Amino acid sequence: MSGGRVIALSGGIGGAKLALGLHRVSAPGALTIIANTGDDFRHLGLHVSPDIDTLLYTLAGLDDPVKGWGRRDETWTFMRALAELGGETWFQLGDGDLAIHVERTRRLGAGESLSQVTDGLRRRLGISSLIVPMSDEPVATRVATDEGWLDFQHYFVRRRCEPRVSGLEFVGADDARMAPEAVAAFADPTLRAVILCPSNPYLSVDPVLAVPGMRKALAECAAPVIAISPIIAGQAVKGPTAKMMAELGLEPSAATVARHYEGLIDAFVIDEADAGLAIAGLDIVATPTLMRGLDDKERLARFVLAVAEALAEPRG
Amino acid sequence: MSGGRVIALSGGIGGAKLALGLHRVSAPGALTIIANTGDDFRHLGLHVSPDIDTLLYTLAGLDDPVKGWGRRDETWTFMRALAELGGETWFQLGDGDLAIHVERTRRLGAGESLSQVTDGLRRRLGISSLIVPMSDEPVATRVATDEGWLDFQHYFVRRRCEPRVSGLEFVGADDARMAPEAVAAFADPTLRAVILCPSNPYLSVDPVLAVPGMRKALAECAAPVIAISPIIAGQAVKGPTAKMMAELGLEPSAATVARHYEGLIDAFVIDEADAGLAIAGLDIVATPTLMRGLDDKERLARFVLAVAEALAEPRG
Repeated sequence: MSGGRVIALSGGIGGAKLALGLHRVSAPGALTIIANTGDDFRHLGLHVSPDIDTLLYTLAGLDDPVKGWGRRDETWTFMRALAELGGETWFQLGDGDLAIHVERTRRLGAGESLSQVTDGLRRRLGISSLIVPMSDEPVATRVATDEGWLDFQHYFVRRRCEPRVSGLEFVGADDARMAPEAVAAFADPTLRAVILCPSNPYLSVDPVLAVPGMRKALAECAAPVIAISPIIAGQAVKGPTAKMMAELGLEPSAATVARHYEGLIDAFVIDEADAGLAIAGLDIVATPTLMRGLDDKERLARFVLAVAEALAEPRG
Repeated sequence: MSGGRVIALSGGIGGAKLALGLHRVSAPGALTIIANTGDDFRHLGLHVSPDIDTLLYTLAGLDDPVKGWGRRDETWTFMRALAELGGETWFQLGDGDLAIHVERTRRLGAGESLSQVTDGLRRRLGISSLIVPMSDEPVATRVATDEGWLDFQHYFVRRRCEPRVSGLEFVGADDARMAPEAVAAFADPTLRAVILCPSNPYLSVDPVLAVPGMRKALAECAAPVIAISPIIAGQAVKGPTAKMMAELGLEPSAATVARHYEGLIDAFVIDEADAGLAIAGLDIVATPTLMRGLDDKERLARFVLAVAEALAEPRG
């Protein structure tokens, strides 16, 4: 497998699994993960960046493998005390998790950019791969539902994805700029693959793509762009993707995701359960995509990079 | 014992012991505790009010009786995680304790005054006595030492009171106003006693007295003003009082504290170990003042209120 830079666009849990696989099979520093920050919000006066934190915890080995979110060995004394004081408790913040929000908020308040804060944190946690917010400017995902427009975390956590979704908007995206390290990664002459992780295409990848310059960067880069389907046999591995697709009038299927990314990607990786899918002009490859253990994550990462390598070779 | 309002001026640990005693022997709502806020500081972006919190925890029964500060049943996951992230860890913030700082900071940011926030917290914790900051404006105690001027918490916690003290200042005091509920307490026609708790006179009571109007309120109120010595037989029960007095060129003794408050108080309560002290024009009474258990606290509170009652009676 050749060397060179790899870019991964990722949301939270689902994307972070493949990001971890890519991290483990890449040379130190060769992977740049561009994280969705559309889920970021201010809560209890703290700047919370859920997808960045999931990536940091996952790559640092601090993630909770049982709960699937947050930190391992977490305690909940803060939330209990906050409830006693009548504070807002709908968004669960573990005691250890709080440290990253407090420290980020403090550094942002001291004038650092979200990129600088994130880079400081990942270095401190000993993560060699770069983790980069899609933008240093705020972009806020909002969800149009049968209960009206909801801020993302209100839809996702407070209302547990129960409201019926009719649309999405990314407030601030028009005025956002790609983070400097995201621009630098696309400009890297060694770039060998751009990977759209199996995150929710609408909630996690679209906000990244909504940042001005991001679609152009994907279109113009010499390296192959490859997406991995988060839908397997019509079902989302985790989260509201399938439910939301149905509500948006879309068939929850790998084919629908492929069409969503059409024109943007060179290849689409689907699960072997969906083998047989064919779309004119798009390379579609099937492989087991369900990532349970570390082996699955590394295997899928190697597979995706091999697909990229094959695509990059001059066709005979 | 007659009814009516009691005012207590208090700092942290030492003062809170007598404040708890007064709270337990007073009618619900009859005690107004005016808390030192000169120790308040902003740390990690959070507004920390150590003396108010000690009073809240103590009166709510949430204080840690072993450690002597902070909350009981505390956990420390946040501090460990913050250390991992390279954050500042010289000031210990327990996981449960964090809730009060986060909630206070959020409410202050939303425009509430420190009085309003404090009142909301004490109500929520089911405390009937009023806890009132000396002022809603910031007043910051600074300590002149052989290492230069230090912010209070840097002197007290970071440098563990080790630097030699040569002076004190209360930055912002000139522009501060007494908190509305402090003014109201002095204006209460039922006021029967004003008690200077056995806190550090220089670090904990003087900042309260530095708020414009406070000395005048003590001088003009009809009720007796009584101080309790924090020094017993030349030793401070806890904390740096005796060390600091020596550094300031003062003999660490109850007599020195009495002279410090001279002109301001009608009576001075000393420990029986110091019995015999006499100062012309000042009523001095001796009683056991060391407060170990709840009984000691209630007994001393009753004693002090009885002294006030005796002073209030027309002299024959």
